[in-house]
Amino acid sequence: MLGNTIGVLFRVTTFGESHGPAVGCVVDGCPPGVELCEQDIQLQLDRRRPGQSNISTSRSEPDRCEILSGVFEGRTTGTPIAMLIRNQDAESGAYEPLRDVYRPGHADYTYQARYGIRDHRGGGRASGRETAARVAAGAVAGAVIALDDMEVYAHTVKIGSIEAKRFRRAEIERNPVRCADQQTAMAMAQAVIEAQEAGDSLGGVVEVVATGIPPGLGEPVFSKLDAELASALMGIGAVKGVEFGAGFKVAQMRGSEMNDPIYMKNKKVRMSSNRSGGILGGISTGEDIVMRIAVKPTPSISLPQRTVDHDGKRHTLKIKGRHDPCICPRIVPVAESMAAIVLADHLIRLKSIAGR
Amino acid sequence: MLGNTIGVLFRVTTFGESHGPAVGCVVDGCPPGVELCEQDIQLQLDRRRPGQSNISTSRSEPDRCEILSGVFEGRTTGTPIAMLIRNQDAESGAYEPLRDVYRPGHADYTYQARYGIRDHRGGGRASGRETAARVAAGAVAGAVIALDDMEVYAHTVKIGSIEAKRFRRAEIERNPVRCADQQTAMAMAQAVIEAQEAGDSLGGVVEVVATGIPPGLGEPVFSKLDAELASALMGIGAVKGVEFGAGFKVAQMRGSEMNDPIYMKNKKVRMSSNRSGGILGGISTGEDIVMRIAVKPTPSISLPQRTVDHDGKRHTLKIKGRHDPCICPRIVPVAESMAAIVLADHLIRLKSIAGR
Amino acid sequence: MLGNTIGVLFRVTTFGESHGPAVGCVVDGCPPGVELCEQDIQLQLDRRRPGQSNISTSRSEPDRCEILSGVFEGRTTGTPIAMLIRNQDAESGAYEPLRDVYRPGHADYTYQARYGIRDHRGGGRASGRETAARVAAGAVAGAVIALDDMEVYAHTVKIGSIEAKRFRRAEIERNPVRCADQQTAMAMAQAVIEAQEAGDSLGGVVEVVATGIPPGLGEPVFSKLDAELASALMGIGAVKGVEFGAGFKVAQMRGSEMNDPIYMKNKKVRMSSNRSGGILGGISTGEDIVMRIAVKPTPSISLPQRTVDHDGKRHTLKIKGRHDPCICPRIVPVAESMAAIVLADHLIRLKSIAGR
Amino acid sequence: MLGNTIGVLFRVTTFGESHGPAVGCVVDGCPPGVELCEQDIQLQLDRRRPGQSNISTSRSEPDRCEILSGVFEGRTTGTPIAMLIRNQDAESGAYEPLRDVYRPGHADYTYQARYGIRDHRGGGRASGRETAARVAAGAVAGAVIALDDMEVYAHTVKIGSIEAKRFRRAEIERNPVRCADQQTAMAMAQAVIEAQEAGDSLGGVVEVVATGIPPGLGEPVFSKLDAELASALMGIGAVKGVEFGAGFKVAQMRGSEMNDPIYMKNKKVRMSSNRSGGILGGISTGEDIVMRIAVKPTPSISLPQRTVDHDGKRHTLKIKGRHDPCICPRIVPVAESMAAIVLADHLIRLKSIAGR
Repeated sequence: MLGNTIGVLFRVTTFGESHGPAVGCVVDGCPPGVELCEQDIQLQLDRRRPGQSNISTSRSEPDRCEILSGVFEGRTTGTPIAMLIRNQDAESGAYEPLRDVYRPGHADYTYQARYGIRDHRGGGRASGRETAARVAAGAVAGAVIALDDMEVYAHTVKIGSIEAKRFRRAEIERNPVRCADQQTAMAMAQAVIEAQEAGDSLGGVVEVVATGIPPGLGEPVFSKLDAELASALMGIGAVKGVEFGAGFKVAQMRGSEMNDPIYMKNKKVRMSSNRSGGILGGISTGEDIVMRIAVKPTPSISLPQRTVDHDGKRHTLKIKGRHDPCICPRIVPVAESMAAIVLADHLIRLKSIAGR
Repeated sequence: MLGNTIGVLFRVTTFGESHGPAVGCVVDGCPPGVELCEQDIQLQLDRRRPGQSNISTSRSEPDRCEILSGVFEGRTTGTPIAMLIRNQDAESGAYEPLRDVYRPGHADYTYQARYGIRDHRGGGRASGRETAARVAAGAVAGAVIALDDMEVYAHTVKIGSIEAKRFRRAEIERNPVRCADQQTAMAMAQAVIEAQEAGDSLGGVVEVVATGIPPGLGEPVFSKLDAELASALMGIGAVKGVEFGAGFKVAQMRGSEMNDPIYMKNKKVRMSSNRSGGILGGISTGEDIVMRIAVKPTPSISLPQRTVDHDGKRHTLKIKGRHDPCICPRIVPVAESMAAIVLADHLIRLKSIAGR
Repeated sequence: MLGNTIGVLFRVTTFGESHGPAVGCVVDGCPPGVELCEQDIQLQLDRRRPGQSNISTSRSEPDRCEILSGVFEGRTTGTPIAMLIRNQDAESGAYEPLRDVYRPGHADYTYQARYGIRDHRGGGRASGRETAARVAAGAVAGAVIALDDMEVYAHTVKIGSIEAKRFRRAEIERNPVRCADQQTAMAMAQAVIEAQEAGDSLGGVVEVVATGIPPGLGEPVFSKLDAELASALMGIGAVKGVEFGAGFKVAQMRGSEMNDPIYMKNKKVRMSSNRSGGILGGISTGEDIVMRIAVKPTPSISLPQRTVDHDGKRHTLKIKGRHDPCICPRIVPVAESMAAIVLADHLIRLKSIAGR
Repeated sequence: MLGNTIGVLFRVTTFGESHGPAVGCVVDGCPPGVELCEQDIQLQLDRRRPGQSNISTSRSEPDRCEILSGVFEGRTTGTPIAMLIRNQDAESGAYEPLRDVYRPGHADYTYQARYGIRDHRGGGRASGRETAARVAAGAVAGAVIALDDMEVYAHTVKIGSIEAKRFRRAEIERNPVRCADQQTAMAMAQAVIEAQEAGDSLGGVVEVVATGIPPGLGEPVFSKLDAELASALMGIGAVKGVEFGAGFKVAQMRGSEMNDPIYMKNKKVRMSSNRSGGILGGISTGEDIVMRIAVKPTPSISLPQRTVDHDGKRHTLKIKGRHDPCICPRIVPVAESMAAIVLADHLIRLKSIAGR
């Protein structure tokens, strides 16, 4: 991982600012012969795009994806796949008063500190809008891993203090918060709306699950599968924590509670529990990979906040505009994409070991 | 990060198996002119090495470090620094009965699945012993960042259900669990001994803090500072979760509680709280970087466990040998090392931006 | 260098096929604050684009470059710079008879062997058209190195058996073969036309010179400056050889003839000759870097050639279409671009060494 | 390629200075299950080591190789293979007068310019001694590609103005210059001795050939097989030029002379000539890969040379010591090693493409 590129054999480079001409990506190293069309990409982009419900930003972006290269007669050719998404509904004028003001919880100051210059409009490069490019790339990764029967899905398990109580996968896409527990979903949505009306925002937890995983994915000791998944997920804007399997609960556990017993089923080595989250020693066990990410409340709130501008002058800021009061539902496809990208990369790496 | 190498400009490659001739590392990209001698490395190795107290393994390894290259007349030359630590007290015979048996919670099966062959003795490459090489490299990284007044320290904040209640940095190295709360440390040590006597082991939480951080470290969007720190920490054997600042607590927080207010002090932009953990948008804010890692209980326990061997035959396993009943105290220098390596890398990357 | 990306800190990724929707590139790692506009890019693209004279292909491509990201208010921001060039005059129908036939001297068979699928139209990814993207990236690199007073230029020194006899830099852009010897240039152009009329093509040698070089560029032992320049130049389609300074003439030389004597001028270490070509031990000496590349005759000729198709059926091929009978003049801006990209990368790497 | 590491999936990192404690390397990414022992490495090291004949340096180094990791019970395990070669016959005292003097044709000044500090003894890191580590790594690479029936050999084709007239592979190792033409070899050796007696040295040309190559190796557009081979060969100390197939002769050729006709034999696509040198579009054709490198005369000569020291003071230098008057014979195993390393890397990369 280097700058705006992630992956070794399956490599994704994203580009674009929130209010520039476009966002997009180049996927390099996609195996040849994979069926792919713009509709496959669009399907995922539509899950991420703004304006899907009353609890997401009202910025209206059709997020039309154009494939510029790497696909010939409906199949990938092994050459780089460039994808382009034009920005259309950018209201840059609204950001003019914020040109030199550092919004708390945002990357305004840190980009200024690092680069000495920044496109302040809509968060520029640090905008969540950049993740549209990740989702486009993730759709390609998804197609790659699907050929080996692997799949990734994610769902919101917690918003504020409200936690999902049961899991029904079919329900995830049926509610605006993408929770696998339809009933709890309604309470979550209500909490989000209340926070929004109070000029505030809410955090949450999203669970990401990868299924159909072959044992052997991951490259110790520094490209361990969990290490790279953690990096990919932590690299999503609002994420402040990542855990696998039993996660932070392991602190209170004893070895005898933690270790997953091993047995044999259909000539395959299996674990009778999955507290390890599907990874041991940085390599997949063959069980589902289970991750959870801590999602912070959207920093853009209309309640007054103390800050300074570039010249050190104090400001009390009330952020107006079209913001998601809770980003969990829209992080779901982004988290899926990041996990799929890492898995596609490691799947290809695994195949490179002679004899496979 | 690729295989056994971490870093872009400050690159560490480790090698070695638990019961092979040696473990070691090559540090490439260390800036020239840094004062360095074997004693600097030894100091850190001594903090990691086994047998420091009654709650760590009794394997007796002096862990003598030899610098093979890259240092001339007491200073680094900019060429690769190779460091060698011979293995001495390997009792390989004890592992012979485990040659084909997969120990639960260990990487035995996953290495076999990936590589089709493995050095089973003492966990081979997956052994915690490999981290001695990381600590040697970390000592070099520590010397590099110290030139810019940066420093990393870590301490145990939780073991089992016992949490540290206060923080006194000076106390960390004064107790066998490396807790900054001397009184709690005694209770923690007691709990560890009890678990050990019960043939079991305990998990915990270690906090890692980096101080003296300049704003601007980190390379969005995929080499964000938190993403790379997360990867480096998650890549330590027993770690199942990583969080920054408020971490998983952000789920319950509102934006107005989460956002760190910004003010100006001595012409520097500062945050009046540090719930972000010192990183916004993947770039350091200049505040301390605060991370916590979830450490699972050591998988090697003498209580009986169900498993299978390579041929699918069932076994009930009682692991004998010299194992740490709680790895937290010895993870402390390893976690410091990994964080220092990432910070050194990003510090050098930051300096590469023209004009600095 | 990996797949379609070159560079470590200044990274260029290109994409696009000859007859697909577009070619383009993403430049990542460009320092922030560099003045850049589309006109800077266009200027270089115009030097590469087809149809400049009667000895280049008549494919009519305006090669308009659009900057999609990374530039704000006329300056780079440190974020990735994506650039797009739409394909317009693609005559794909002409390639339909060649769908399964392997053209000698082209990459048709090798792409098929590697990927099992290929976009045959106009050479697909292997087309010289891809170099438009390199020239766009090279223009950015040129702007970066120009800030440190470095510059790269190239010129044709040989076509067929005709060699330039003198060097006047001002004359390079005044003749269709880009030779620094106007008189010889006319003879070269004549030879090219004669070859073309005979249904054939001609090879040549292009010299690439980098000036204003600071000593210290290059990263031994595997990222030596000459190693990376050689890779970048050899990676241009028609290039079959690269040499530095005295090049292949060193075989006949004695050490006493080869070694450049060292002296001091204006407190700078200088060489009184430059047979090393400006690089010793893989690091720049501060003298001009002088390289020459061997350019093979364009493989697309209308004389009959023996070959086979995908099914092994024999064909006698006469290639029609719009092809450059000698590619030297159009390789000049491409070679300059590749050298500039490597130099920009190494310049930034050099700045990363602490204390500079 | 970055600093002291070469390769993507088969990665070699070397370390060590001429007069430090040791040189060595870490090979990461070697496929598991490859038979390997120290004797395999030693065999190649013995071909490179000094003192083999009266025309090589008399420094007496046994160059004993110790494998430190990555091999278990005679087979590689997929974990990093570290190899160590202790320096023994370093006569550092002889270099004391040269501590601050820049030897012409050497990297003394450029290392000083880049790093501001250097180990001057015996050339330090820039010494040819570092290539012992490359040869050790090359032996591993050779074992990897041999499993797919690939092999690399090299031989001296020119020294001074004397060229080999015929090729008999069996004769290469039977004469001190490693020429495949025994008779010419004697003349070459004589020329070298004469140059040495005159206090001077001689250059030459070495040809490197890779056989048994599958079509499809190479990763356009920036990791083309020829680009990476060129980089690897140009990165050898004395090399000033690299060419493939017809090489610099292509300048005088016409397309109709250059293009290799294509035919079918035993259901395989073949070329009836090999002017392309086995690579088209950066991907192997399946024919032998044929490369030639220009080797400069050894810069260490005892004839007087003009130079300066670190403080700008002029010196007339006569270099004493034990130097090879012509490095061609000892470059042979190094060039083979570098080519094998690149081929092993690309072989593994090719296997990573799904479906193989």
